[in-house]
Amino acid sequence: MIDLVLLRHGESRWNHENRFTGWTDVDLTEKGVEEARKAGVQLRNEGFSFDVAYTSVLKRAIRTLWLVLDEMDLMWIPVHRRWRLNERHYGDLQGLDKAETAARYGEEQVLRWRRSFDVAPPPLSPGDSRFPGRERRYGGIDPALLPHTESLVDTMARLLPCWEEDILPELSRGRRILVAAHGNSLRAIVAHLEQLTPREILELNIPTGAPLVYRLDESLAVRGSRYLGDPAEIERAMRSVARQASPASSHEVADDGAQGR
Amino acid sequence: MIDLVLLRHGESRWNHENRFTGWTDVDLTEKGVEEARKAGVQLRNEGFSFDVAYTSVLKRAIRTLWLVLDEMDLMWIPVHRRWRLNERHYGDLQGLDKAETAARYGEEQVLRWRRSFDVAPPPLSPGDSRFPGRERRYGGIDPALLPHTESLVDTMARLLPCWEEDILPELSRGRRILVAAHGNSLRAIVAHLEQLTPREILELNIPTGAPLVYRLDESLAVRGSRYLGDPAEIERAMRSVARQASPASSHEVADDGAQGR
Repeated sequence: MIDLVLLRHGESRWNHENRFTGWTDVDLTEKGVEEARKAGVQLRNEGFSFDVAYTSVLKRAIRTLWLVLDEMDLMWIPVHRRWRLNERHYGDLQGLDKAETAARYGEEQVLRWRRSFDVAPPPLSPGDSRFPGRERRYGGIDPALLPHTESLVDTMARLLPCWEEDILPELSRGRRILVAAHGNSLRAIVAHLEQLTPREILELNIPTGAPLVYRLDESLAVRGSRYLGDPAEIERAMRSVARQASPASSHEVADDGAQGR
Repeated sequence: MIDLVLLRHGESRWNHENRFTGWTDVDLTEKGVEEARKAGVQLRNEGFSFDVAYTSVLKRAIRTLWLVLDEMDLMWIPVHRRWRLNERHYGDLQGLDKAETAARYGEEQVLRWRRSFDVAPPPLSPGDSRFPGRERRYGGIDPALLPHTESLVDTMARLLPCWEEDILPELSRGRRILVAAHGNSLRAIVAHLEQLTPREILELNIPTGAPLVYRLDESLAVRGSRYLGDPAEIERAMRSVARQASPASSHEVADDGAQGR
């Protein structure tokens, strides 16, 4: 049996401020730091270890990973940063808070972007300073591959090469892998692992800071999965992520993880 | 011109306790953490940036790197951990403090191990639990390559493949590199860069926490080098490292970096 552990980073500053984050490189809050430490302690206490770790090129995921590796005394394992593990790009909404977004586009339209599988928010204009191709971080990448906006299915598609070319081959060699990433990039991995339908993917709510453990057999078929931690607490966290998708919620922009989660 | 910056990690716990460290994985002290942060601030303030970073598989170097990358807002750059960048292995002396070492072997013998180019301390016995081949961290490596002890020239020799196969090719492509490592692994890099004689290598005292900047031309010849920071402070730090090699010093086991530096 091979372990694959997925970990969604904790609260970020813009999540706290209720803004769409996407690829904006905001840091964790103190609460987010605590969530990461706690995940590391849980993994250590349950006897987990890893051979290699993957993360995005965004500091809220990288810091989460650092804190976990530190708690687990695994600072020495190889860490691979991959832009393909970044959060869903949220286009022109990035930086807007809930009130600004609703005022500009209307609540209904925002819900459509958030809760659909293949509808993307308005793209960044050509020349927008927020376009990733303008950042040195993405300098080695063909700009045609970099998003101006993304639907959930776009996120899943750009993640696929990282899954197939990096993570699957390591799993095939029996490597125990930790992936510290974002709500939608982890959703994409779970979708590939469990071959979910679009509806199932939209209904999938991965809580922050709770290690999601997959046990795979030698053919890399899923033999089981579970969250570490107190089941009641996990249940509350999942309901909370799901609630964030509902228009009645006061945190409604958070469900798609575009918000810094 | 291409920048290569070498950074020796700051004070570790065993350095503080005056013990031979070598490959023992001790952490930084609070003072060591502050030294690393300060180096990051200096690099940022002087306008440096990096494309890639190298470090050892020992947490005192990795944490130093993490703190620097955090200060420089470069958490996203690729980081390569290499066992070949580890500190000199100090054999059976690892874990002993100054008084224990002198009592067991005599002051003169200890000085000979420390100040010679090609004399190694007593090796770990076969089956010693401190042998790196017993650690998962070195699990992928041919045990015949892993040291039971090292002279300074042994350290230089095992570092060479990392220098020639990893770092030089990246420099050739114009990549700006930060290497966060240890007193003797950095000595080895400087020796290769500047083609130092054994005597010059022994006289080289790299202070902790002070970024050492090399400017290389396109043929990778050294065009200049300098330490960042206050020259008087650097001078004091270098004298202090040199003094640690003298038998009159109260920190005499520290010069070879075997001590956690």
